[in-house]
This record gives sequence, C-alpha cells and structure tokens, in this order.
Amino acid sequence: MYTYEHPHPAVTTDVVVFTIRDERLQVLLVKRRNPPFTGCWALPGGFVNIDEDIEACALRELQEETGVSGVFLEQLYTFGAPDRDPRERVITVTYYALVPHDHIRIEAASDASAATWFDCTDLPALAFDHDQVIATALKRLRAKLQYSTVAFQFLPDKFTLSELQRVYEIILDQTLDKRNFRRRMLSYGLLAATEEKVRNGNHRPARLYRPQTPGRVEFIK
Amino acid sequence: MYTYEHPHPAVTTDVVVFTIRDERLQVLLVKRRNPPFTGCWALPGGFVNIDEDIEACALRELQEETGVSGVFLEQLYTFGAPDRDPRERVITVTYYALVPHDHIRIEAASDASAATWFDCTDLPALAFDHDQVIATALKRLRAKLQYSTVAFQFLPDKFTLSELQRVYEIILDQTLDKRNFRRRMLSYGLLAATEEKVRNGNHRPARLYRPQTPGRVEFIK
Repeated sequence: MYTYEHPHPAVTTDVVVFTIRDERLQVLLVKRRNPPFTGCWALPGGFVNIDEDIEACALRELQEETGVSGVFLEQLYTFGAPDRDPRERVITVTYYALVPHDHIRIEAASDASAATWFDCTDLPALAFDHDQVIATALKRLRAKLQYSTVAFQFLPDKFTLSELQRVYEIILDQTLDKRNFRRRMLSYGLLAATEEKVRNGNHRPARLYRPQTPGRVEFIK
Repeated sequence: MYTYEHPHPAVTTDVVVFTIRDERLQVLLVKRRNPPFTGCWALPGGFVNIDEDIEACALRELQEETGVSGVFLEQLYTFGAPDRDPRERVITVTYYALVPHDHIRIEAASDASAATWFDCTDLPALAFDHDQVIATALKRLRAKLQYSTVAFQFLPDKFTLSELQRVYEIILDQTLDKRNFRRRMLSYGLLAATEEKVRNGNHRPARLYRPQTPGRVEFIK
C-alpha cells in the first residue's frame, strides 16, 4: 500500500494510431477485457508505472495490447476532467501516430481481448472520453495537412501526385481540385521529382516524387 | 492520509506567459518561497486539486502567484521525466499564454515571494525542468507564426504592418525584409485595411489594419 498526505490522481496514456486502409482513414481500437467498460472498444493504453517515462508507457501499452511497435509517437493532449473515469481521478496523456498500413501487424493480448481497425467516420461506442480524444487527434491531423508534410507518412518512399492528393482527400473527407492541388504542392518546394514514372491503366505514365528533405514533419515556410 | 494499492504520481500545472515589453519577448517568472528550489526562479504553477480541472488549476495558480487573470491558455506539453522533481514523481501539464503587456498587472503572493518579467534570451537559473518548458513554448510560438495569426495577440485591435513586422522580428529574433513581409502577410487574406492612418515621425502616414476575422488563432489555408 502507498500512502500520501494529499490525494493523488492516477495517470494513464492512450494512443491514437491512424492508418489509411481500403481508401479510408482508420484508427486502431482494442476491446477491453477488464472493468470498467468491459467488452467496450477503447484506445490502447494503460497506467504509467511510477518510474516509467510517459512516452515509454504509451509505447509499452500499445505493444502489449496490439502487438504494434516501432511507431513514431507525437504527444497530442492531456485530458483530465475530474469525472472521466468512474474508478478514481485519472489523468490521461494522449499520443498519436501515423502508420502506412502495410507496415503493421496486429495481435491483441494483455488487457485487450481484440484489436482491430475502425473507420474514423464509423466508430463504435467508446469507453471513457475516447471519442473526444479521437476527435482531437483528427482535428490536429487535418490542421497539420495545411502546413506540414505529415501526409508523406502514409505513403511509400516514392509516390505520384495523384497518390498524395488521394491521401489529402481521404483525411479531409473531401474532393480536391487536381490542378490547384498540384500547383500548391509543387510551389512549397517539399517534393523532389525522380526520373521514374509509373503506368496506371490507360493514363499516360505518372512521375514519381519523393520528399525533398527526408524526415518526418517539415514545416512549410 | 490517502492510501492506494499502486504508487501514484503527483500532477502539477505550469504556465508560460509571454509578452512583448521594451521591444523584447519576455516571460513571467516567480521566485519560489518554499522547497525545493527555495529562492529560485520558476514558472508559476502548482498541484492539481483532486476534483479540479487541469486548466482551471493552471489559471488558479497563475492568479494566486502573480495576480494575472483573464488570459487565454493553450495547452503546451506534458512533461514527466521520472526524476524531474526531487520530492516524488511529479508530472506537469504545461500551458502557454500570449498577452499584450499593457493588459497585465503583476503582484506576487501565495507560494511566490516575487514575480517579474525576464527576457527570453537572458533567463536566470530555473527550478526543475522549466528551462526545457520555456524552450518548448518558444519553439511552438515560433512555429505558429508561420501558419497562424498568433502574432495578432500581442497587438492592439488595429495596427500598422510595421508594427506587425516588428512582432515577428522580436519573436523570431531576426530582421525580416519589409517588402517580402508585406506581400506575404497581405496575400494570406487575414488582414483587413481600415480607413484610418497614423503618422509616425517624418514618414508618410501608415495605414491601420485589423484582423479580417476576429478571433484568436486562425490557420492560414
């Protein structure tokens, strides 16, 4: 037993892993094995050990519950409404990650009885305030599309402008004008044209591009 | 006394309040009245009450220690290295605020024996990891200049383009080209010209601008 002079909250982490799969933006959820919300879908996450770094906890819980490892996490927001957990005061530090779908194999274990992808536009009922966490992550992701190379993280090393546009359209859930999109993307100086082209059906071959500067998220200056 | 089956961290908030004063970007610090780091400068902040919203705690501690109230806080980052506080495991949820200097009166009280502004480029030795917190806030502020109207928060309701440029230069700590700056700012469609002009010394009168859409932070689309 651990005793304190003043009451202490518990601290957890929760992780929003986004991918694009079947032309849809999807999020990784687990089915809870334990109370509260047993059998309910939730974000992978759990309690921070007393000597554990917060981000290390997020990576550990993600790995334990879904088998997913080696992803790059960015801290999203800390949620702490006093009544967000029926057990006790629990403050959760949330993270998000963007992964190309091919790189990910999922296997539920530990506190999760199942783990699978859900369309962001068709989520099941979620435990705690996890609907709010996902909404916050989606808002952040959409905002970042406007000023960073975040979309490249869903693509292979080389890609066509049509593939890049499709990523934007899927995340923003809207159709974009092809000519405006191309002009805008090329004007940023973030893309380097390669010598390679790919043929797609009866269209003329499309040039492959790669990020101008390798790296994760670059600000558009 | 409060007893738990597993050890619990303590949770605090810390607030980075930026202003521009004497043509410099400054940050509000308090001198600590109590251990640890007694007499050392630190960010205003303190422990979250068990039934208190996190942001409400940040506003309360800021008000108690510095007399500053009515500012708009944005959550910055949650810091939780296991050894960041010598007393026990303490996780801190940090916030930042941008205030025009004229609006602020400071009065140290509670756990603070003094409260004053320091140049961001000339900070004293700081308690805990508060140097890291301020560096993170400064990085966020500079990044936001590139894609939002964040700079307007340091200005009165109407301002000249020279005044806006000066805010950018002070925050970025670099000189900007006047013609490029004006062209870029006007191209965003975020500024509305007013009918008013102001005279400044022997220069020809300068037009006053106001934000196109009132509001705090608008993303540049």
